[in-house]
Amino acid sequence: MLNDKYSVLFEPLKIGPVTARNRFFQVPHCTGMGHLRPKADAATRAIKAEGGWAVVCNQETEIHPSSDLTPFTEGRLWDSRDIPALRLMTDAVHTHGALAAVELVHNGNHASNLSSRAPVFAPSDMSVDSIVPKQAKAMDKADIRALRRWHRDAARRAKSAGFDIIYVYAGHHMTLPQHFLLPNMNDRMDEYGGSLANRVRLIRELLEETKDEVGDTCAVAFRFAVDEMSGVDGMQASEEGRAVVEMLAELPDLWDVNVSDWSNDSATSRFMPNEGYQTPYIEFVKQVTTKPVVAVGRLTSPDKMVSMIKSGVVDFIGAARPSIADPFLPHKIQTGRIEEIRECIGCNICVASDNMGMPIRCTQNPTMGEEWRRGWHPEQIEPKGKETEALVVGAGPAGLECAMQLAKRGYEVTLAEARTQLGGRAILEGGLLGLSSWKWVSDHRIYDLQQRGNVKTFSQSPMTAQDINDLAIPNVFIATGAKWRRDGVGRSSRGPIQKDPQMTILTPDDLMAGHLPPRGPVLIYDDDQIYLAGVLADHLSSAGYEVIFATPATNVSPWTENTLEQVRIQTTLIKRGVQLILGKTLTQINAEHAQLSCIYSKFEQHVEMASILLVTERKRKTELFDALGEDLNHNHFKKLKLIGDAEAPGLIADAIFSGHMAARHFEKSQRNIEREYFRREIVALEGN
Amino acid sequence: MLNDKYSVLFEPLKIGPVTARNRFFQVPHCTGMGHLRPKADAATRAIKAEGGWAVVCNQETEIHPSSDLTPFTEGRLWDSRDIPALRLMTDAVHTHGALAAVELVHNGNHASNLSSRAPVFAPSDMSVDSIVPKQAKAMDKADIRALRRWHRDAARRAKSAGFDIIYVYAGHHMTLPQHFLLPNMNDRMDEYGGSLANRVRLIRELLEETKDEVGDTCAVAFRFAVDEMSGVDGMQASEEGRAVVEMLAELPDLWDVNVSDWSNDSATSRFMPNEGYQTPYIEFVKQVTTKPVVAVGRLTSPDKMVSMIKSGVVDFIGAARPSIADPFLPHKIQTGRIEEIRECIGCNICVASDNMGMPIRCTQNPTMGEEWRRGWHPEQIEPKGKETEALVVGAGPAGLECAMQLAKRGYEVTLAEARTQLGGRAILEGGLLGLSSWKWVSDHRIYDLQQRGNVKTFSQSPMTAQDINDLAIPNVFIATGAKWRRDGVGRSSRGPIQKDPQMTILTPDDLMAGHLPPRGPVLIYDDDQIYLAGVLADHLSSAGYEVIFATPATNVSPWTENTLEQVRIQTTLIKRGVQLILGKTLTQINAEHAQLSCIYSKFEQHVEMASILLVTERKRKTELFDALGEDLNHNHFKKLKLIGDAEAPGLIADAIFSGHMAARHFEKSQRNIEREYFRREIVALEGN
Repeated sequence: MLNDKYSVLFEPLKIGPVTARNRFFQVPHCTGMGHLRPKADAATRAIKAEGGWAVVCNQETEIHPSSDLTPFTEGRLWDSRDIPALRLMTDAVHTHGALAAVELVHNGNHASNLSSRAPVFAPSDMSVDSIVPKQAKAMDKADIRALRRWHRDAARRAKSAGFDIIYVYAGHHMTLPQHFLLPNMNDRMDEYGGSLANRVRLIRELLEETKDEVGDTCAVAFRFAVDEMSGVDGMQASEEGRAVVEMLAELPDLWDVNVSDWSNDSATSRFMPNEGYQTPYIEFVKQVTTKPVVAVGRLTSPDKMVSMIKSGVVDFIGAARPSIADPFLPHKIQTGRIEEIRECIGCNICVASDNMGMPIRCTQNPTMGEEWRRGWHPEQIEPKGKETEALVVGAGPAGLECAMQLAKRGYEVTLAEARTQLGGRAILEGGLLGLSSWKWVSDHRIYDLQQRGNVKTFSQSPMTAQDINDLAIPNVFIATGAKWRRDGVGRSSRGPIQKDPQMTILTPDDLMAGHLPPRGPVLIYDDDQIYLAGVLADHLSSAGYEVIFATPATNVSPWTENTLEQVRIQTTLIKRGVQLILGKTLTQINAEHAQLSCIYSKFEQHVEMASILLVTERKRKTELFDALGEDLNHNHFKKLKLIGDAEAPGLIADAIFSGHMAARHFEKSQRNIEREYFRREIVALEGN
Repeated sequence: MLNDKYSVLFEPLKIGPVTARNRFFQVPHCTGMGHLRPKADAATRAIKAEGGWAVVCNQETEIHPSSDLTPFTEGRLWDSRDIPALRLMTDAVHTHGALAAVELVHNGNHASNLSSRAPVFAPSDMSVDSIVPKQAKAMDKADIRALRRWHRDAARRAKSAGFDIIYVYAGHHMTLPQHFLLPNMNDRMDEYGGSLANRVRLIRELLEETKDEVGDTCAVAFRFAVDEMSGVDGMQASEEGRAVVEMLAELPDLWDVNVSDWSNDSATSRFMPNEGYQTPYIEFVKQVTTKPVVAVGRLTSPDKMVSMIKSGVVDFIGAARPSIADPFLPHKIQTGRIEEIRECIGCNICVASDNMGMPIRCTQNPTMGEEWRRGWHPEQIEPKGKETEALVVGAGPAGLECAMQLAKRGYEVTLAEARTQLGGRAILEGGLLGLSSWKWVSDHRIYDLQQRGNVKTFSQSPMTAQDINDLAIPNVFIATGAKWRRDGVGRSSRGPIQKDPQMTILTPDDLMAGHLPPRGPVLIYDDDQIYLAGVLADHLSSAGYEVIFATPATNVSPWTENTLEQVRIQTTLIKRGVQLILGKTLTQINAEHAQLSCIYSKFEQHVEMASILLVTERKRKTELFDALGEDLNHNHFKKLKLIGDAEAPGLIADAIFSGHMAARHFEKSQRNIEREYFRREIVALEGN
């Protein structure tokens, strides 16, 4: 039941000619599905509508082949051939009573037009903004006229695809309208350059023309980054950011305001831990315009939401990541089930998916992106079949998720954990500097399990094969996790690295178990190259250690470019005084030093240290699984399944997915699982 | 007419149950089209068949969702839903009388299964082979049985898709059968690990089972990398490489042999300048087996081909890149038009396309990848319309290509070049260390123009707007190119960099024009980050200069990871003693030193030098075009078009494409050009 204090969140609100049923607004966000996976995209958006969002936006949607983001899969509306795919989404969103919005985009020099081979456009001559051998040409007047025509045509097509809200988009450093606005990118001498009024001209024209074209029935939203977060070197909310809002105040039907670039807008919890972190930048907007305002900031707390509305910061609660972690967030608030909200942990696995060119993933919500192809619903799961009981060994992310979903299905679930605390790596990594929100992964699941009558949870209960045999539960899921290797084996060395027993060798597991290195310099060797070694360097360094960081990569934690954190991580380490040794593999560990070899020249180098922390690769803990498979009477078990890191080490998101899938697949035949692997979207062979 | 000495190349030859019409064999190569662009892929392969190749292979074709190369677009045969798309190719290839081959693949830990989320497989536990947070699991016996079943099923599906030759693939470090073979990746203790006989077991099983399944009507080919080219640290042709061929000698119907990894097999001309560079590794194979052998090595000379066959090195002339540069290579030899062959320059733009997730491109052949979507044929072009005459200003790549295609269309073409030599940047860059084959871009086109009666070429003929006006040719194509900026503007600095006039500042244009730096250390500042700065560093260093190389990138020439050259480039520079300063932007040029700033911390550093070579960005040379547009009577011109680097600086491949497209579009209305932008492949909305 809706708590009265949250009723303001469920007031309907007009946006130009359309009306939102409440104040929950899923702002545009990528899904990595777009034009290549339109059915999957439509289903993902539909789940949000079903979960109670009043407005569901799609993602940046290219208006012309000169804005071709290949190989990244976003929306596409190059011409009328793209309408039917988008119609799938609007129909699905409307079915659940929400408004559907489209974010039209011309990406200028953020697009490299790799597939279309069209010329790349920018306000002035310049390189494209990725390491691609192309330069953009300064748009001449004919190009600008063409762009306006393309935008108008796309707006018309969007309307005919059934969208209720059409965006003009100037944000994330990714779009031409913003590029024209920024003096750093626009040195034109004509009426589109120079004064702010000139630099804003293109935006004004696009807004006016979009309203003219579709404004009778569609609302026209303006997504605008008010601050570049680079101080006086960029646009500031207090200076030109505000001036732009003043100049265009009543022109759009809705202001969707944020900060730029993407790494600032979608900042991770590691670097921007607080909910509502964008408020200081955007709170002026409502003072300048009478039109409704939406903004974001990883908002998941209904009290915070109410306060933002009551204090006049926003009219709509914008969300991208929180709507991914929990599509049913509005519904849960409305029905008084606030404790059941799966809170976004701010890890940016969703962002990384898009950057890696794959369909969206979420650590907290394993059904994200799987709604259509596997038919998974975030709040529903098939009831159990003939079996009645299951044992889950290990209460890390995979075990917790598996136990929770099995319990939801109606099995009697026994969950056994060797450690004192449930949570596994979610709480262990969550104890490291910057990762405390990781713990929400286990908090959510432990809370859920506690509410259920059909779950028995045992901590401090390490299990042997004999114990399990004695329990006589016929269905066993083994989620024993993985441990970091101590022998140096990893990406760069398939064999153990030679070592002197006098040197103290540590692994991340030692540190997370509370064992600190001895005094003196510690060398962190990162052959993993994902995120953990960078976190540990930060952690140890802030704890006062002299840290040397060596890696075969040419920058620190290269994978975190996908989560938009890499620059922040490396900057932090340098500023802490961590010594970086890049592009080197570890070849030998001696009594007082390590030997490193240049990945290019193989030239060797020595580094003195008191201890070495190896972050290379993980070893699956399959001893229990193997023993059950070998020693016990196999007929005893109907199901014996390895899940999570014990099956294949990956991210926490992968472990959650693995546990979830095992629970969904339980009592299905292997044959059916293979047959129903998943639905796919395949290119049409008929027509053009 | 076929020269007798080449007749051996046109002998038919049996491959198991099928017969190749001649000895020209397009080995499997990626197109970046695959399952997402099946119509385009089919058309590209069909052109090869039309051009005379006897066997046309597709690309690595995934046999199961646990071999999912997303976001790279290769072939796919996960289940029967994928058959119709591949049928397009086999039908198209058969129409032109060639055999169609499919390269079945399971990529093991080379695939990250980003889309499918399937577990990743390897012989032993290990990380995936890219910087992705996943580890592969050691395959258990059930996994191996499943793999064999998947391969057998895929072979059956391939047969039903119409393929004549089915590959088992163990090469490029990219496939499970090779992973099982390599001791570095296989430390199993069972019958699939240990001795060579054990490590080869999986390959033998796959070969036997494929023959059993489809061998009645299909040939079974084995693609095998005989040498890892890492000396005693890897498999060597003279050791286990040979032993494998001996063990399996008569099992496959065809041996397709090469070297591993991909960077060795597809070595660029910059590092492997000679045709037939793989011969020393593979020439033993024919001594060990009676089955036909195909091998590659960027072969384009018919004399070399004949000698390789007559001396018993190979039975088939294998080609990937040469067949991309000239799909009609066999046809041209057969009809005695050897001089018309567009020789592969070994630049790996084709490889880079695949690595960048986009459809295939070729520097020499601008129609590559455009056969279906734009309807372009490499040897045919629409005859001219009503216009009779055209002027092309500038004989660089874009101007030469445009002039050549206009001449083919039947126009009277005048080509004016300011310099003494035709060729523009193709010959200027071609004068740098390692890039001499770049000159073939202009050689081919100059030769072609010389053969034609309707072309007048003028060198040493710089043109002014007045000159052009006086010529009174109504159709003018301006290909005046671009020059490297001298002010420091580039990716990292949108404004000019402050400089002291006492410091000598050079650009690549100065060097290519023969102006050497003064004595003393030269600082090369690479804000371009593509390939040229790395080439110049190598060039100057080999000429005896002390070179310091600074760049905001964290490695040298990062874009060349796409051409598989990056490691070789950086290794070469280090070994030459070039000092590398990575991750730094240039902020100031003083009288005797430069000021650099860390891209992360902004900490500053000084570098002493005698001169600085700025490789940052190019400025389009549009003065002539602008003057024609402004000063002259516009009505005088029916067509005035900017092409190549003068329109938008890019690769030589982009310039050629631009010139080619302008020639194709000439006399089409802008409306039709936009309407016919290109055909597209769109996801089917019906069915699954």
